[in-house]
Amino acid sequence: MTGLLTIVGLGPGDPRFLTPAAAEALATATDLVGYGPYVDRVPERPGQQRHTSDNRVELDRARFALELAAKGARVAVVSGGDPGVFAMAAAVFEAVDGGDPAWRSLDIRVEPGITAMLAAAARVGAPLGGDFCAMSLSDNLKPWEVVEARLRAALSADFVVALYNPISSARPWQLGAAFKIVAETRGPDTPIILARAVMRPDEQIRIVPLSEVEASMADMSTIVIIGASTTKLIERPDGEMPYVYTPRFYGVRP
Amino acid sequence: MTGLLTIVGLGPGDPRFLTPAAAEALATATDLVGYGPYVDRVPERPGQQRHTSDNRVELDRARFALELAAKGARVAVVSGGDPGVFAMAAAVFEAVDGGDPAWRSLDIRVEPGITAMLAAAARVGAPLGGDFCAMSLSDNLKPWEVVEARLRAALSADFVVALYNPISSARPWQLGAAFKIVAETRGPDTPIILARAVMRPDEQIRIVPLSEVEASMADMSTIVIIGASTTKLIERPDGEMPYVYTPRFYGVRP
Repeated sequence: MTGLLTIVGLGPGDPRFLTPAAAEALATATDLVGYGPYVDRVPERPGQQRHTSDNRVELDRARFALELAAKGARVAVVSGGDPGVFAMAAAVFEAVDGGDPAWRSLDIRVEPGITAMLAAAARVGAPLGGDFCAMSLSDNLKPWEVVEARLRAALSADFVVALYNPISSARPWQLGAAFKIVAETRGPDTPIILARAVMRPDEQIRIVPLSEVEASMADMSTIVIIGASTTKLIERPDGEMPYVYTPRFYGVRP
Repeated sequence: MTGLLTIVGLGPGDPRFLTPAAAEALATATDLVGYGPYVDRVPERPGQQRHTSDNRVELDRARFALELAAKGARVAVVSGGDPGVFAMAAAVFEAVDGGDPAWRSLDIRVEPGITAMLAAAARVGAPLGGDFCAMSLSDNLKPWEVVEARLRAALSADFVVALYNPISSARPWQLGAAFKIVAETRGPDTPIILARAVMRPDEQIRIVPLSEVEASMADMSTIVIIGASTTKLIERPDGEMPYVYTPRFYGVRP
């Protein structure tokens, strides 16, 4: 088969954070496939077909894109952030694995992008400076017991934890439950970063101690970073937001 | 103070993966500071000062960059991958925290980049498609007991694990020890990805089952990704490298 399917990471949203390789994949595609607001971020090109869908049908969207590519199209599946991190790449490969065997002959590529936790971390300092875990707090695709067990494991070994998909109208209580679990092992001053719409015009970033954090401070567009026991604030003069970082060393300072 | 210090993520190396924002920070700096091979990746500009050092003096390099910025320079500290992930950003904030209080007034920014695990994952499919941990296997900055406890915690909760700094001439045995620990809980067919010099001319990527992996397959430029119990291969025709992905769902398939 001659078709090409590239899953393209748009990064946080601002084109200043889109890699040239990703921009080229978007520019040379015959067909764009994706969630409407992501497709809307891509400049329109004459002759390029745009196929948009809502946010809840990743597998259907992936199969549609694979069918187009199997017919010979150059398809770009647009994805927020990095396609490989809680985004469209896994859905595409799930569709290949369970779908038409001929799809395995397709040229399927992934163009990486700046994922939300990297963008959020960059805005506040270096909170991911030590070892860290990234997990989705959604229990749509795995039981809450698995989410909870993973969170507890990450906390027990003093990883920094980045929480994707922290809350939505259909999942209102999970983030509050997660903060309670965090408070069982981490101190009240542990820095929690709530970064909403990072590097977009409506960006909002808060750094809140664990004792004061509330689930209502997050929404669907927020990424939450939970500091480790070593994560520190550097206070700054003139009311500037403090820097937050996690030292590289652990235990005895070298 | 009027100085500016930006810690700039170069990504994997090829300028096609350097964000426009990072490129601009490099182009407008009066001074570049960094490890020689990273500084060498940046095009030379008339009037721009270049200050290179070797790879073992991150804190000294950070202090030097802060001193330059405190004198009014626009400094770019160049970093491989993403500065916030096992790279230069944490070192700079460590230096600020323990250094001249005046440095807290400086404008210190981080320009995110494509970190090695995202580049490696993109090359093979979507191995980070589920929850994952990223950890440095180096025991230069933390005791081996901490490394081992974190690895065991991540394995116990069935995270995918990305290992940075897996091996070096000064740390020859740690990766082999890590693979032994992995084999206590993960099956012999667990896919291990060894991605060396990703997205550079000498890129070399191997996908090896846990039962056949050896520490000698990695070097200082390699990132190692250890699959979860759910991580799968998709075999392909004509001798092509298989795709590797971790499904988004866990437990019962939705």
